[in-house]
Amino acid sequence: MKINRYEDISTIDREAKKDYIDRHSAFIHCEASAKKGEKFKVKVKIGDEYPHPDDFDHYVAWIQLWDGEKMLSQINFSAGALGGEANQAEVDFYVVPSRKMKLTAAAFCTKHGLWHSDEKLVEVSE
Amino acid sequence: MKINRYEDISTIDREAKKDYIDRHSAFIHCEASAKKGEKFKVKVKIGDEYPHPDDFDHYVAWIQLWDGEKMLSQINFSAGALGGEANQAEVDFYVVPSRKMKLTAAAFCTKHGLWHSDEKLVEVSE
Amino acid sequence: MKINRYEDISTIDREAKKDYIDRHSAFIHCEASAKKGEKFKVKVKIGDEYPHPDDFDHYVAWIQLWDGEKMLSQINFSAGALGGEANQAEVDFYVVPSRKMKLTAAAFCTKHGLWHSDEKLVEVSE
Amino acid sequence: MKINRYEDISTIDREAKKDYIDRHSAFIHCEASAKKGEKFKVKVKIGDEYPHPDDFDHYVAWIQLWDGEKMLSQINFSAGALGGEANQAEVDFYVVPSRKMKLTAAAFCTKHGLWHSDEKLVEVSE
Repeated sequence: MKINRYEDISTIDREAKKDYIDRHSAFIHCEASAKKGEKFKVKVKIGDEYPHPDDFDHYVAWIQLWDGEKMLSQINFSAGALGGEANQAEVDFYVVPSRKMKLTAAAFCTKHGLWHSDEKLVEVSE
Repeated sequence: MKINRYEDISTIDREAKKDYIDRHSAFIHCEASAKKGEKFKVKVKIGDEYPHPDDFDHYVAWIQLWDGEKMLSQINFSAGALGGEANQAEVDFYVVPSRKMKLTAAAFCTKHGLWHSDEKLVEVSE
Repeated sequence: MKINRYEDISTIDREAKKDYIDRHSAFIHCEASAKKGEKFKVKVKIGDEYPHPDDFDHYVAWIQLWDGEKMLSQINFSAGALGGEANQAEVDFYVVPSRKMKLTAAAFCTKHGLWHSDEKLVEVSE
Repeated sequence: MKINRYEDISTIDREAKKDYIDRHSAFIHCEASAKKGEKFKVKVKIGDEYPHPDDFDHYVAWIQLWDGEKMLSQINFSAGALGGEANQAEVDFYVVPSRKMKLTAAAFCTKHGLWHSDEKLVEVSE
């Protein structure tokens, strides 16, 4: 399968392409450092500036959260969970780190396939 | 399959049973009312007073969020995502309601099976 | 959430009701006995005599296979995997039993909710 | 996340590496051609010559089947569904094609991460 990757949309001219890339990209929002053994919140949102449709034949069906080669969690959405209007699929995962994390997220749009995020490093202290 | 249901543990005498029921039960934490068409946060936490193991052979593997007969979302966890120590599996779902919601959650423990939560009503206003 | 259960449709008069129940019910097709430690095929088909739509807003989204209180596997389908025409969602699971199994299946229709199958016993010999 | 890809193990000398690659690779077994609108069986097996552990801390947790950029289905396994002994995770998917398919499979091992299969073309005739 083809893997689409995040591009910095400020480097892109064409409005339609900015929109296309942004609304499919998974953005990881979390602190840059965590305490070992303590619960740590990792928000993943699909789209930063643009919303994505939530139509039956076109929606974000799932998001996976990875730490390096290990998948931590996967959330599946039903079409219509965002009310059927364009919005940004969103979830807060809670994980407990034991060492430095290299977080990435993958998201699947039922029309435009698989998207892999950039990596987000989280330092973990005792 | 057997379906285990929430019981109010304040009515239970035996400490081990209180612990057993509480640590497997899904608790829905959200506002009692929402605005139609606006994103609404629904936290689900497994256990209110007691933690659940996060061992490879004994952990909470998934949580489903339902509105009446419709499943809105399902999150799957990998063993060890909570660091391998007893804790409370937790997730924040974000949904956009269009009418009154009757939320329930289901959770699956790899050793102690399927647990259905109580229903939580959410009024939805224009 | 409401749990719909299989009913023997030969006991039902109304054609529309026969159709409604049959096309949502999970049927487990497998041998009545298995060898301990050997791979064993368990087919699950949704509907026995009637097909179910595979529309974007109305399809069978997942099937779970359970052995007693333990979930063995869950398969999720994308809308349209059956070509968008009415058909019977189908999957062959492969499991390796170590003792007598009490198999049940659950299926979720995006319009008509959750359906639990009858239990199917599988004897397991050395 | 790192994506591991299939390599032809006949080109590999070291026995441990042959084993490592083979037992994590998803192999798609199906006919080379299908009839448009008819149900078509696609077997996916993890490993061709070597088995993979089914330990609680080391097992194949899921397999996805893709047609080009579209995910058709995902199956999740519970640890122990293969009896806790080394074996080959296996599933038969049933899909209904409407045009030529470019099938790939992805598999996730809880210890050795994500593996993408080779592409398998399926011609589809009227």
